[in-house]
Amino acid sequence: MGYGMEGGGDELAGRRVLLDLGEERIIEEHIVPALSPPQPGELLGPGEDARDILPRGPRMLIAHDGYSVKTLRLPWRTMVDIGYAAVMGAASDLVAKGAAPHAVTVALGLENNTRIMDLDNLIQGIVGACHELGARYMGGDTNISADPWISVSAIGFTVARPPGRGGARPGDIIVATGVYGAMGAVALDHRVAERYGWVREATRRPRVRVELAYIVARHHSYITSSMDVSDGLSYTLYTMSRLSGHAFLVTEPPLYHPELPEYCAREIIHVDRHECIWDRVMHGGEEYGAVLTIRPEGVIYVLDEMKKLEIPHKVIGRVVDEPPGLYREEKGRRIPVPVSRWDQFRGWTTITV
Amino acid sequence: MGYGMEGGGDELAGRRVLLDLGEERIIEEHIVPALSPPQPGELLGPGEDARDILPRGPRMLIAHDGYSVKTLRLPWRTMVDIGYAAVMGAASDLVAKGAAPHAVTVALGLENNTRIMDLDNLIQGIVGACHELGARYMGGDTNISADPWISVSAIGFTVARPPGRGGARPGDIIVATGVYGAMGAVALDHRVAERYGWVREATRRPRVRVELAYIVARHHSYITSSMDVSDGLSYTLYTMSRLSGHAFLVTEPPLYHPELPEYCAREIIHVDRHECIWDRVMHGGEEYGAVLTIRPEGVIYVLDEMKKLEIPHKVIGRVVDEPPGLYREEKGRRIPVPVSRWDQFRGWTTITV
Repeated sequence: MGYGMEGGGDELAGRRVLLDLGEERIIEEHIVPALSPPQPGELLGPGEDARDILPRGPRMLIAHDGYSVKTLRLPWRTMVDIGYAAVMGAASDLVAKGAAPHAVTVALGLENNTRIMDLDNLIQGIVGACHELGARYMGGDTNISADPWISVSAIGFTVARPPGRGGARPGDIIVATGVYGAMGAVALDHRVAERYGWVREATRRPRVRVELAYIVARHHSYITSSMDVSDGLSYTLYTMSRLSGHAFLVTEPPLYHPELPEYCAREIIHVDRHECIWDRVMHGGEEYGAVLTIRPEGVIYVLDEMKKLEIPHKVIGRVVDEPPGLYREEKGRRIPVPVSRWDQFRGWTTITV
Repeated sequence: MGYGMEGGGDELAGRRVLLDLGEERIIEEHIVPALSPPQPGELLGPGEDARDILPRGPRMLIAHDGYSVKTLRLPWRTMVDIGYAAVMGAASDLVAKGAAPHAVTVALGLENNTRIMDLDNLIQGIVGACHELGARYMGGDTNISADPWISVSAIGFTVARPPGRGGARPGDIIVATGVYGAMGAVALDHRVAERYGWVREATRRPRVRVELAYIVARHHSYITSSMDVSDGLSYTLYTMSRLSGHAFLVTEPPLYHPELPEYCAREIIHVDRHECIWDRVMHGGEEYGAVLTIRPEGVIYVLDEMKKLEIPHKVIGRVVDEPPGLYREEKGRRIPVPVSRWDQFRGWTTITV
């Protein structure tokens, strides 16, 4: 507690909270040192109310995401993981559109009895994610909040045309990047999912493969639409189908964690292991892969590049000339895929298609 | 309440809350229609997870501010005013550095029992501020929060060198733009301040004069430092003094509201009306003027342009070759100015200089 008790060694430092330091010292001692220094040509350094950047390309992409810390806080996520996950969420939006994030800013809302140590860990996660992405943590703001939150703004540059969500055309091939199933298990029941080490491991720090931005940019003339998977694969596919005006036919599940079948063998909701796998890969979230629809003549180039850059991916279906809808096609039968998403205000929500 | 009761007319609509609509409809029906459409060359429209912008200048400035709605909520501010104030806060940071905001993104954290009407009003305030600034509301994110918050990211462009906070040199003239006193009265006691119509009027929608960006950019070679006044004039002056390594000598109060002397005549804390005026102008916040330090040979050009563009301003002092500190100089005497700021975690805080 107590003002003026600083410098009392590690044990005390571990108990110190934001209120003890106050805004100025929090920023100057705990945030500014973590920020990216000015690069050649830039004049405003860490701690300034604004930063300057020389544009790195003829088109810039911006995304701005917010998170409730409660929502990000899976029981096995530390504050480091939470900072990391928040940055990856905003980065994922840029990458799916073909831009690697260059600059990241973060506004925080924290309780004034938040331990300084927790703030430091949060910052460490933010810095770690930026490092992983090759992005710069440029600054932001701190605020008081009884219900902690993180808001992340990301800026990237590209020379290419970014694909929208709604451009898929009949005949396009649907490719999903990323590995699915773990967050689907969490979404179903996080207390059960928590028992599985592979689930905890896969969901602790959702990772965005920034190399995908390069592929989307390089092959933009073949990529008719692209959307990141942040609210579950079924929701991403459904949204892209709806906005394109065409049906999405899924013939294969995406890549999933090799442990998923074993999990599904024990799961009690589904008697059918096959259906369990489909459910868990479709109704997750925060996988931060992307769904791309690709003109057939370009598929070979895109897949070849994904292989070279070691981006996990799979062809999962095709776009057909029928009214919007999301279907599985198995053994010649078509089964409508239920669509669900994490709705900020309603929680897990089934969408009536 | 209930799902599926939509379309029941105005009375029902007034009672509908975010939970009733869900995230997708909130975004598609209430936010997307308010967003700026793509301009020539831009490909990603409202509702996409990212937006694209063609850079409008060879240097971009970014600022990212967050706010607790509680902190922004003076009793006489509506939700429209709160949205407006949040955008102006981020805009102010860019303007003081010489860039007019071009793009604004906003992440919101709201309770799920927030009335749709309140959301609409918040959006209206955001749009209104963007309109006033000539900026574009490009998108963002919505989240659930038990303690509502707003996070605003602003991007602007400039051809000039943005001044930092710490570049003041001995001999420089100190100019403060903006009109002071109203927020100082609120900071002292908002229940007393509320009785004054001029205080409510002046603090309802803090306004940023975007034309100042042009002046800062055009005369950047004379402007040695610049900082916006968001946490009180004393804190801005103190910070600029501290970072420059030189003392700031204030010889005149800044412009203040013409009703301030009358308020001070009734104020019971100060027996001395003159001291009351100094206190109220120094210890406010959110005035969103700026303090500029200007090389003496450039003052005439900067002031002349401020007059032409009708930006309220006043020469309030000079920088002297002495250790950092903030002083008033009156009738040849120097009086240290107490420094205070709104600290997010501690509330009003006196800073020991």
